[in-house]
Amino acid sequence: MGKYCIGVDVGGTSVKFGLFCENGELLKKWEIPTRKENHGAQIVSDIAESILKKMEEQNLTAENMIGVGMGVPGPITADGQVVRCVNLGWGHCDAAGDLGARINMPVAIGNDANVAALGEMWKGGGEGHDDVVMLTLGTGVGGGVILNGRMVAGKRGVGGELGHITVNPEENQQCNCGNRGCLEQYASATGVVRVAKKLMEEDNRDSGLRHMENISAKDVFDLAREGDGLAVKAVDILGRYLGMVLANVSMTVDPDIYVIGGGVSKAGEILLRVIETYYRQYVCITQDRAKIVLARLGNEAGIYGAAKLALSGREQV
Amino acid sequence: MGKYCIGVDVGGTSVKFGLFCENGELLKKWEIPTRKENHGAQIVSDIAESILKKMEEQNLTAENMIGVGMGVPGPITADGQVVRCVNLGWGHCDAAGDLGARINMPVAIGNDANVAALGEMWKGGGEGHDDVVMLTLGTGVGGGVILNGRMVAGKRGVGGELGHITVNPEENQQCNCGNRGCLEQYASATGVVRVAKKLMEEDNRDSGLRHMENISAKDVFDLAREGDGLAVKAVDILGRYLGMVLANVSMTVDPDIYVIGGGVSKAGEILLRVIETYYRQYVCITQDRAKIVLARLGNEAGIYGAAKLALSGREQV
Repeated sequence: MGKYCIGVDVGGTSVKFGLFCENGELLKKWEIPTRKENHGAQIVSDIAESILKKMEEQNLTAENMIGVGMGVPGPITADGQVVRCVNLGWGHCDAAGDLGARINMPVAIGNDANVAALGEMWKGGGEGHDDVVMLTLGTGVGGGVILNGRMVAGKRGVGGELGHITVNPEENQQCNCGNRGCLEQYASATGVVRVAKKLMEEDNRDSGLRHMENISAKDVFDLAREGDGLAVKAVDILGRYLGMVLANVSMTVDPDIYVIGGGVSKAGEILLRVIETYYRQYVCITQDRAKIVLARLGNEAGIYGAAKLALSGREQV
Repeated sequence: MGKYCIGVDVGGTSVKFGLFCENGELLKKWEIPTRKENHGAQIVSDIAESILKKMEEQNLTAENMIGVGMGVPGPITADGQVVRCVNLGWGHCDAAGDLGARINMPVAIGNDANVAALGEMWKGGGEGHDDVVMLTLGTGVGGGVILNGRMVAGKRGVGGELGHITVNPEENQQCNCGNRGCLEQYASATGVVRVAKKLMEEDNRDSGLRHMENISAKDVFDLAREGDGLAVKAVDILGRYLGMVLANVSMTVDPDIYVIGGGVSKAGEILLRVIETYYRQYVCITQDRAKIVLARLGNEAGIYGAAKLALSGREQV
């Protein structure tokens, strides 16, 4: 009877691995570079080789293993097919089937943001809940919807793509996805900076932001914490749209808890407070509202979630 | 082995019943008035009595029955408790448990809009799909989210409450829920009329609407079909917000198909066309988008869905 599993988080720069006990204890952590040349044709065999090598090192055979879970940066259909992974060079493929054949173990696969949400549900900010929605505020905005402990992948693999919910149809700048007014344009690290720069053009007030060479999302939050008017306004815009999206997600799937992760979430309390203010304003629930908390696993959410995926198999709602 | 089930749709005026074969054939249909006096204390016993009487008439015993499903007009928690049903006079109660004890059969319960969505998935506009989102455009706007063939009730029973998604934070009139800018304020029968009247105040153009005593949603669609400028504008506003909500729901749970029902959906093609136009504009999916179709079961969606609920038990995602 297998007692171990491996979680694999495939990123554009490196592939992260974690060897876990079935109770969720992380025993070993390692990573390898992502070889993207030749349309990423080596990636799956590199992963297979690294897993088999680690198992040998640890004196583990396939009999000791429950299986492997894998998060990848692209849409995955409900039946486990990769639609595409632009950052890896992959087109439509069956990466899970391919890896499974190479290592002779069951392999479960999911979109990386969905898998991270599963990780935070299991051992992170959402621990103890099984209806969890996560937003990852990084360079872009990713998301994951977990209902009854399972990822909602969606028919086309775009379940949980909360960064591309339209929050402002009047926006005139284009989002990376080609649309206008997506949440990502206001609530990602680049979005906060974009908004702050736009406010500097539109508003004559002095601001600490005007005395900086390169503005980062962290600068905007740091200045907002000190009461800098323009920075407060940029944070308010981000909080307003995030609060609105969470309220609308509550009216759709009504989860227990929201987990906010990604680089921007390092802003901490000031971020939670502004999201909470607007969430309360927009949501049609007057008591016992969903909790909003910070993510706890940081960059390890991906390997935790992938391990959980291996444990629960690829049963999706 | 039971081969029959009964679907019950509890409304504020009447309770509708359907006796079904397990394959979904509707054998008998009947209804009784809803006795709302004394906080609706008689409703469950009236339902029990009516079911037992019909079974006797049809020579059916509990052994012939798989069970009973029931849709009620209020939020139902994921564990089957009624939070409240204002229209019935009910507060927090265990209506399913109470009915089950009286008829000695398993009883499954759900929110009426969620149950109607399940009915449309089973034998209506969503037949053949198991990830279905329904919007019911009636006096208000109700909704239901079905994933993997099961209703998403939500932790507080507000799963699928799509009518209260905020679509226009700038709105100055209040929705029935107390918020401002809910979808219901634009896309319900009363919402379309409200928007049309507001346009008549703001826009000096002549319009057929100005020559009517009492404007109905049907009038607005009829005039829009003839090219009446103000009516076209009202329909466009409704279609825009509906399209935006469907796009945002796609980014959250990515269903196969949207089913549009309720009185307003009698407008037919013109309604589907305007929703589709804006759905395409706002959704971040460029091919193989979710289908948008009209509901097929009309007022019977509730009994069909309740029967399906009885068949699948109250296993919810």
